[in-house]
Amino acid sequence: MTLGLMQSQGLLISMLLEFAERHHSDVELVSRRVEGDVHRYTWAEVGRRARQLARALDGSGLPPGGRVATLAWNGYRHVELYYGVSCSGRILHAVNPRLHPDQIAWIVNHAEDEVMCFETTFLPIVQAVHSKCPAVKHWIALCDADRLPRDSGIPNLQSYEAWVGAQSADYVWPVFDENTASSMCYTSGTTGNPKAALYSHRSTVLHAYAAALPDAMNLSARDAVLPVVPMFHVNAWGIPYSAALVGCKLVLPGPALDGKSVYELIEAEGVTFAAGVPTVWQMLLNHMKPGGLKFGKLSRTVIGGSACPPAMITTFQDDYGVDVLHAWGMTEMSPLGTLCALKNKHLRLSKDAQMKIRLKQGRAVFGVDMKIVGDDGKELPWDGKAFGDLLVKGPWVVKEYFKDEGGNPLVNDEHGVGWFPTGDVATIDPDGYMQITDRSKDVIKSGGEWISSIEIENIAMAHPSIAMAACIGMKHPKWDERPIVVVVKKLGAEVTREEVLKFYEGRTAKWQIPDDVIFVEAIPLGATGKMLKTRLREQLKDYELPIMESAANKWA
Amino acid sequence: MTLGLMQSQGLLISMLLEFAERHHSDVELVSRRVEGDVHRYTWAEVGRRARQLARALDGSGLPPGGRVATLAWNGYRHVELYYGVSCSGRILHAVNPRLHPDQIAWIVNHAEDEVMCFETTFLPIVQAVHSKCPAVKHWIALCDADRLPRDSGIPNLQSYEAWVGAQSADYVWPVFDENTASSMCYTSGTTGNPKAALYSHRSTVLHAYAAALPDAMNLSARDAVLPVVPMFHVNAWGIPYSAALVGCKLVLPGPALDGKSVYELIEAEGVTFAAGVPTVWQMLLNHMKPGGLKFGKLSRTVIGGSACPPAMITTFQDDYGVDVLHAWGMTEMSPLGTLCALKNKHLRLSKDAQMKIRLKQGRAVFGVDMKIVGDDGKELPWDGKAFGDLLVKGPWVVKEYFKDEGGNPLVNDEHGVGWFPTGDVATIDPDGYMQITDRSKDVIKSGGEWISSIEIENIAMAHPSIAMAACIGMKHPKWDERPIVVVVKKLGAEVTREEVLKFYEGRTAKWQIPDDVIFVEAIPLGATGKMLKTRLREQLKDYELPIMESAANKWA
Repeated sequence: MTLGLMQSQGLLISMLLEFAERHHSDVELVSRRVEGDVHRYTWAEVGRRARQLARALDGSGLPPGGRVATLAWNGYRHVELYYGVSCSGRILHAVNPRLHPDQIAWIVNHAEDEVMCFETTFLPIVQAVHSKCPAVKHWIALCDADRLPRDSGIPNLQSYEAWVGAQSADYVWPVFDENTASSMCYTSGTTGNPKAALYSHRSTVLHAYAAALPDAMNLSARDAVLPVVPMFHVNAWGIPYSAALVGCKLVLPGPALDGKSVYELIEAEGVTFAAGVPTVWQMLLNHMKPGGLKFGKLSRTVIGGSACPPAMITTFQDDYGVDVLHAWGMTEMSPLGTLCALKNKHLRLSKDAQMKIRLKQGRAVFGVDMKIVGDDGKELPWDGKAFGDLLVKGPWVVKEYFKDEGGNPLVNDEHGVGWFPTGDVATIDPDGYMQITDRSKDVIKSGGEWISSIEIENIAMAHPSIAMAACIGMKHPKWDERPIVVVVKKLGAEVTREEVLKFYEGRTAKWQIPDDVIFVEAIPLGATGKMLKTRLREQLKDYELPIMESAANKWA
Repeated sequence: MTLGLMQSQGLLISMLLEFAERHHSDVELVSRRVEGDVHRYTWAEVGRRARQLARALDGSGLPPGGRVATLAWNGYRHVELYYGVSCSGRILHAVNPRLHPDQIAWIVNHAEDEVMCFETTFLPIVQAVHSKCPAVKHWIALCDADRLPRDSGIPNLQSYEAWVGAQSADYVWPVFDENTASSMCYTSGTTGNPKAALYSHRSTVLHAYAAALPDAMNLSARDAVLPVVPMFHVNAWGIPYSAALVGCKLVLPGPALDGKSVYELIEAEGVTFAAGVPTVWQMLLNHMKPGGLKFGKLSRTVIGGSACPPAMITTFQDDYGVDVLHAWGMTEMSPLGTLCALKNKHLRLSKDAQMKIRLKQGRAVFGVDMKIVGDDGKELPWDGKAFGDLLVKGPWVVKEYFKDEGGNPLVNDEHGVGWFPTGDVATIDPDGYMQITDRSKDVIKSGGEWISSIEIENIAMAHPSIAMAACIGMKHPKWDERPIVVVVKKLGAEVTREEVLKFYEGRTAKWQIPDDVIFVEAIPLGATGKMLKTRLREQLKDYELPIMESAANKWA
């Protein structure tokens, strides 16, 4: 007996491209280029050029599974690389140009990239790294032949247009297992070497479905979508794939991320939806306010990368009529994990009550499951109060890092199912809304109880004389760890250790009040503006806790 | 070198249920029951009861892959069966109770169903078929123990509540290959034996993603969804699965499909989205008009099953503010193929121009690809004019029928990829909007050109004296086939053969005008209200064409 079933078509990224080509052939992709001008063409042309690129890769002898690196802005050639490289069976490796050249060289060598495609903006980086990356056989500048940098010092440097332009577009995408690797991203890695998440065709297509859902980015063929989030940041949160899946217009900002440029692009191209980190939106709002500018069609933004200030959500909503959705994810999660769309029952709540929910990281999109566990690995309740290590699983969550770097990262549950530990500490409320309270490595474990370093910092930041605060845990003979708070005073402001400690009273449980306050000139920040607590701990390695004064002693 | 990749979690229907249970535990399912009352509970309870059902199936010795038939309305117990049967590795077979008992017995035997769960409404059907279905070991009435029909004549008849209610809910869903069969539906089959499409866990979950997309049913956790389309019609277009995927409220109408009942349920439960066939919506509108009733929250409907009259779309939109989406699919397609959502560029068109698009069957949702081919199998252009046989492919389109019934249905393209011939004839416009012009078996092939029987019928139906019209092709010695039109006059109206033929002039190309008009008292209709042209052809087997009068002769 044959059991007749459904067609066995694999989920390949070429399905996305062919769908956009056939069903949305005249829909535009508009890109601001490094040259300053605006380039426009259609999904039909993406398809044609991606096939030309595949032929160029064939001609360069790059085998299936071979890695192609990019150092590129959000633009049409980068979109062609996304599709041409992956659909032809190679692996796209978008490199973050904001890393130090030494890190870039390390990553390129670790990934064993054989081709490097870079914007001319990043020529200095390439000049710094090319001699350290002997495995890269082809250096390709993303420009026309006549704009190829002269005397670059890069051997055999070619222009992308010369490399690709001469190829025939007569090419049929190969069919292979949907679990084949399609692209990779390295995590910034505050400790140890960078590690890469390796995405598959299957995980990418499933993520593209989920990201387009109404409770996620809500993408349709009526949208014009602006990913301000870079394509070298976890594939611009998957937007280049979801855009093909729904056949929407794609607006790509290139290197111009200042408020004026982004505003002009939004208005000129009728952008309805935009995605990015809070910093970019702050620049945009700063540009708009003085002139009383308004949005024509922008109705939704997704904000991720770091927590969005409540004032920004309110401003977008009340002053500009733009709905702001909080999102949370990780490189290891392709990246989408949760989005903060309201549920039906929340529609009846007051605006204030809705805001309380909207400030959370949100609830899981279907495909991702999550849980919080205590020190003993046991699942904690979803009551919005208990907090523990956040673990996730699903078909677009990493199983292991590229080359097994760092060993098996998963934690098995009692059924033998592996969960990925996010490194975040979170609460989950009964409706499934997750809120990050800390990073696992930053949470302070005092006498068997956990103290959120973020909560301690937020209280200090509310003091009128404090500009910045970092809470870290210090070893304590009795309580295991105790919090101290490191603060930077506002310019010209004065405040004493005792005043700061007093300020905590009534604002948190007494045993959670820091045991000490340390005044510093500056707190070390990383490239993305996050506080580097590891460096802070190094700076304080000779510091000693005032053991006898511990708040925990007094209130235990 | 280990290539680290993504987690290998299969797409199982149990993922959908567990997601709804964990992330939307208190969201309601509201069901009107056969008993007349309204039952309400939550996704958490669906999960609990589905696990109890799985234990009951274990206890009944039903092996993995075993078939469980249902004869049931849209209601909570049917939802439990959808999940409990499939998630535990068995196959759900929802039987259409509107079929003749002999057909039902044939189908139950062909499917080798071992369990039959039926609403007490359908007891007469079960009494008629049970002795013909010896392989069915368990007959389960979907009711409480104290409502079990007495003296039913069905051996060992049990109530669902007695069978399931006593079980423990302590059960872990098994993990198996995502290509395992999950459910099956038989096609009505106008020729030959009924054939079953066998859906897999993978195809069902992928379809659930696609059906929830903004350009499909646009489902979110803010919706309350009413599937009026029966759960025995291609799984209610997949809504029970998509509802779990987005965590929305599900409102199930039971047997009460009259206008008053449906209206009251929509209003009482705050329904935002409803799906069904045109007949049901006509009854609803007929109920609402006299009293000037309005909708509170209903904002969208999807209409499928047969083409929606333009007047109905206009009424919904202009009088009630409800957006109507045309949809097209098939049992063999799980069922969604196309939906008629507008694109960005259409938003600027006039209402009339938009309506022209909205009357088409729509464009493919991602996952489905389609093409039209001529007699030679070659693909025809997407120009909105050329029409040919419509073929589809994708991960939720059948590869073959259950038990290989009817042999390989697919047609291979030049790359060896199999496409499923839908049996429809259609045009596709440059934007990918498909419009069905005929069924393949009804299209009239005259002198190498195709004539749409539907177009010829629509013209006749526009005549003030004609109530119904059927166009069929008759063998012609010179032109191969020529159209004739069979008409039913309106009560008390008069019209002659010559007047009808005259009416066609200027309304279609002259060579497409029928060669004859035949007046009849009634045109045979099938169970779903569709004209049975096969029977009409049998009735006219002795008919002879007026060969010399052919319009084709005059205008060739």
